[in-house]
Amino acid sequence: MRPELNKDTTLCISLAARPSNIGTRFHNFLYDRLGLDFVYKAFTTTDIAAAIGGVRALGIRGCSVSMPFKADLLELADVVEPSATVIGAVNTVVNDGGVLTASNTDYLAVEQLIASNGLDPSRSLLIAGSGGMASAVATAFRDNGFQDGTVVARNAQSGPELAERLGYHWRHHLGGACASILVNVTPIGMAGAPEADDLPFGPEAIEAADTIFDVVAMPAETPLIRAARAAGKQVITGSEVIALQAAEQFERYTGVRPSPELIAEASAYSRA
Amino acid sequence: MRPELNKDTTLCISLAARPSNIGTRFHNFLYDRLGLDFVYKAFTTTDIAAAIGGVRALGIRGCSVSMPFKADLLELADVVEPSATVIGAVNTVVNDGGVLTASNTDYLAVEQLIASNGLDPSRSLLIAGSGGMASAVATAFRDNGFQDGTVVARNAQSGPELAERLGYHWRHHLGGACASILVNVTPIGMAGAPEADDLPFGPEAIEAADTIFDVVAMPAETPLIRAARAAGKQVITGSEVIALQAAEQFERYTGVRPSPELIAEASAYSRA
Repeated sequence: MRPELNKDTTLCISLAARPSNIGTRFHNFLYDRLGLDFVYKAFTTTDIAAAIGGVRALGIRGCSVSMPFKADLLELADVVEPSATVIGAVNTVVNDGGVLTASNTDYLAVEQLIASNGLDPSRSLLIAGSGGMASAVATAFRDNGFQDGTVVARNAQSGPELAERLGYHWRHHLGGACASILVNVTPIGMAGAPEADDLPFGPEAIEAADTIFDVVAMPAETPLIRAARAAGKQVITGSEVIALQAAEQFERYTGVRPSPELIAEASAYSRA
Repeated sequence: MRPELNKDTTLCISLAARPSNIGTRFHNFLYDRLGLDFVYKAFTTTDIAAAIGGVRALGIRGCSVSMPFKADLLELADVVEPSATVIGAVNTVVNDGGVLTASNTDYLAVEQLIASNGLDPSRSLLIAGSGGMASAVATAFRDNGFQDGTVVARNAQSGPELAERLGYHWRHHLGGACASILVNVTPIGMAGAPEADDLPFGPEAIEAADTIFDVVAMPAETPLIRAARAAGKQVITGSEVIALQAAEQFERYTGVRPSPELIAEASAYSRA
């Protein structure tokens, strides 16, 4: 158990337009299990500059940032790490004695998954999606040497923009495209989405691929992940991204890296 | 027990140059006992304006203010109640949807003690001390009709200033002065102070008085309170001031007024 809350307990927070309970449950669970004198709570705000001023002035140690504040922090932080500048979005702020350092642990998590899964940068890559998270994922691949990339996105503005920034191709529709690595960063297959039961890639593309990476984390087994496992492909899931980015964030706030098992336990608890 | 900490848990804080654990223990004890979905933590800051901006932007519900920030809040709050303006010091800030209302619950506690002890405003009053708390106490007496007052203070600047503001007399030394009500707002008799074992009033003054009020709260039985009880005088203690001001503050933050018994229990717990 952690110590009783006291004047020296370290506060970490999150800032989002619509906070969920996941972060609050995840971090406090780990503080308890690791006996850390920390407390975590989600907040919302209508004045991000004053809220970040308060983080600095109150000595709040860490601040997780969600939509719509991810770009604001590029200006409000004192130091912005490459993980955030390359995609123009911050999700993590660490306060060292009033100096705020911003980073993007989604990007860092994808980098770690590329390495731990031994993905070779000479392989071809097909990424579906062109939103903020798609930008983080695609940029992590590009920055790790993947040059043969294609962005598939229905959005005729963000799709070609993302592809052009990375030197990748853009396709409006999948058509007959295939690649060695397929990555889904669209809401297709996400619980509650209109296309919850659909596949972002057709059977031919799945069959032709070697590795299938679905960034969608809810449900844990998306239709794409099920199809990939059934076809015997190498699989990387959205739950892995979430767990890694959360572990990275947790370590930056507390200096302690929880074991993968403990992260999995906290993650399950936070979503229960 | 209160609910598990979650995204909707209400945060209250304190701001002081040198935070103690008392407020954090006092409020969290009561939240537990009353099952309130609140959490309380002490903070310090080197930028009071940004910290208060953070209180507003993060929706922090209440903020207790100690030295050296008590005067700053007169400017930083949106509404300042008379309890704070009359003494030029704020100790309590309540945030209603971004509108910050400042008050002084020390002043309000003294007002309540004057009423509950049935002190008649025609009686003569001798107040020792001229600091911030002495100003709160003396002003509460004056505002409740006490016109025959004398401030005894060695400080030749703040003493006459306080007396003049209230239309009271000032004495540099007690000499042979006496009055129906004696009030000590100096550190004399306070645990740890150089004059911890001394009396702020001489035996003749104590003998001549009917009511003796010692604002010093540590120890609970100061030398003055012991002497007053021994002489059979009506007694008002610093613990009563602290408990009442804390109850007032607690009610303003939560909307719940704890019973005097529960306040006493929380107060004992917070100092253990």
